[in-house]
Amino acid sequence: MKFAVFNWKGKTCVGRVVEDDSAIECFDIPEASIRTEGVVALIEKPLPKAMETVPLSEVELLAPVPRPSRNIFCVGKNYHEHAKEFAASGFDSSAAKGTVPEAPIVFSKLPETVVTNGAPIRLDASVSTAIDYEAELAVIIGKAGRNISKEEALSHVWGYTVVNDVTARDLQGLHSQWLIGKSQDTFCPMGPWAVTADEIDLADTSVKCWVNDELRQDSNTGLLIFDIPTIIAAISNGITLQPGDIIATGTPAGVGIGFNPPKYLQPGDKVRVEIGGIGTLENPVEAF
Amino acid sequence: MKFAVFNWKGKTCVGRVVEDDSAIECFDIPEASIRTEGVVALIEKPLPKAMETVPLSEVELLAPVPRPSRNIFCVGKNYHEHAKEFAASGFDSSAAKGTVPEAPIVFSKLPETVVTNGAPIRLDASVSTAIDYEAELAVIIGKAGRNISKEEALSHVWGYTVVNDVTARDLQGLHSQWLIGKSQDTFCPMGPWAVTADEIDLADTSVKCWVNDELRQDSNTGLLIFDIPTIIAAISNGITLQPGDIIATGTPAGVGIGFNPPKYLQPGDKVRVEIGGIGTLENPVEAF
Repeated sequence: MKFAVFNWKGKTCVGRVVEDDSAIECFDIPEASIRTEGVVALIEKPLPKAMETVPLSEVELLAPVPRPSRNIFCVGKNYHEHAKEFAASGFDSSAAKGTVPEAPIVFSKLPETVVTNGAPIRLDASVSTAIDYEAELAVIIGKAGRNISKEEALSHVWGYTVVNDVTARDLQGLHSQWLIGKSQDTFCPMGPWAVTADEIDLADTSVKCWVNDELRQDSNTGLLIFDIPTIIAAISNGITLQPGDIIATGTPAGVGIGFNPPKYLQPGDKVRVEIGGIGTLENPVEAF
Repeated sequence: MKFAVFNWKGKTCVGRVVEDDSAIECFDIPEASIRTEGVVALIEKPLPKAMETVPLSEVELLAPVPRPSRNIFCVGKNYHEHAKEFAASGFDSSAAKGTVPEAPIVFSKLPETVVTNGAPIRLDASVSTAIDYEAELAVIIGKAGRNISKEEALSHVWGYTVVNDVTARDLQGLHSQWLIGKSQDTFCPMGPWAVTADEIDLADTSVKCWVNDELRQDSNTGLLIFDIPTIIAAISNGITLQPGDIIATGTPAGVGIGFNPPKYLQPGDKVRVEIGGIGTLENPVEAF
């Protein structure tokens, strides 16, 4: 099932996407919690009653988790070809330079970086001149757990969504740890909606990204270095994962710094991320 | 002024510490918000009315910000002697190996790592066998801002508290980015209370740490590599800082990995962090 968060007639709703993605049900859930937790309001509860079905064209979609309750977990250098291009870029401040990491590289993005499908990615030229896109499959955790085994890991997943892990490469390198370069305002487009875990074949899901009409990234989750059970086991090793936690699983080759000269985002660009079985997340790039 | 968060007679209060730290006022503020935001409930508002004054011995102190609204910002390698000891340790996965960083190294800790004065730091031997203490002055942001200049930075500070940035050194090295090693459950003792910004002389505030009765860290905020205005300017560069954000400013020399052989925390230890003008944060170390 697909679930989206949206504004409609002055209120914020969460509902199920139906009729070949052309319409959406609005569930009977108090509005206040939806504005921040989005689809997380559905986790570990029976499916709420649909009050009304609305044409998708009449609603304003929000990110499926508009404001995660803590920073988004992200995995770096998690596809072989991308690990190579990043190591060669000069911006790699990780210990595993030029090689495949021996364990997942996990960093975070601030929850306020989340913006919805269609919202602008803002470039502030006074802060960074090397802003890059990263198409990623994101996990939405459904069940709390600590020291989760790989075997049990997928039972803790509620669903998936699409994120663009936008990155200021210059700040990523300058500060050594990646938080600042990854957490610039507007740097986490997410959406257009979330799908439940049963909709995704992790061994074979396409991950693609276009800038304007140029296909830049074209890979598959079957090529992840550390698969999703391994990532969940690594993060929950000593850390209690919570329902609603978001884990962006890493980006494949083809990011802007992989080109010579680099192809960074420019005002006027449109970035489109498409993940098979979920949908398309498109965001314009604008000067701040 | 000093403000603390505490449980008393079955309710959670925030109030002012008075009478030479022997008593505390309980303010007239709704309880629900205090349980998570703590002293942040006081920011940008007139000082609430005190309902009652209670002996400090009768209350159970909580962390001054029991559950920060997003991950805690932390600065790494921000005292010269510590930068040297860490670079020599073999666990340094930062780009600036063996040298002073060219810009603040900023990473984060999950908000659920926060525990109060007196609560145990838990060691899970199945997860890490190299758990270390880090005494740090922590900033509490009081006024939102983006692209804050160094000159304006201190006007965005509401106050300060004491944190122990407990770290699993093995995980910090293994994962290259530091989030996992820094975010283990119970790894951010904070307290015993917060003080307003006017109480602290940033050019001369002592930062000390004892493990049991051995003085391990003994330094001064006057020796920070990047001072607090520089840190605030760096983090707010493209990122909107918010009231209630916590920034741990880095630890001086004398951490466990600085010794040969290293002196990691062991069950039964007590770690005491003392910052001049604020107070003493003491936590026992227990097996998970």
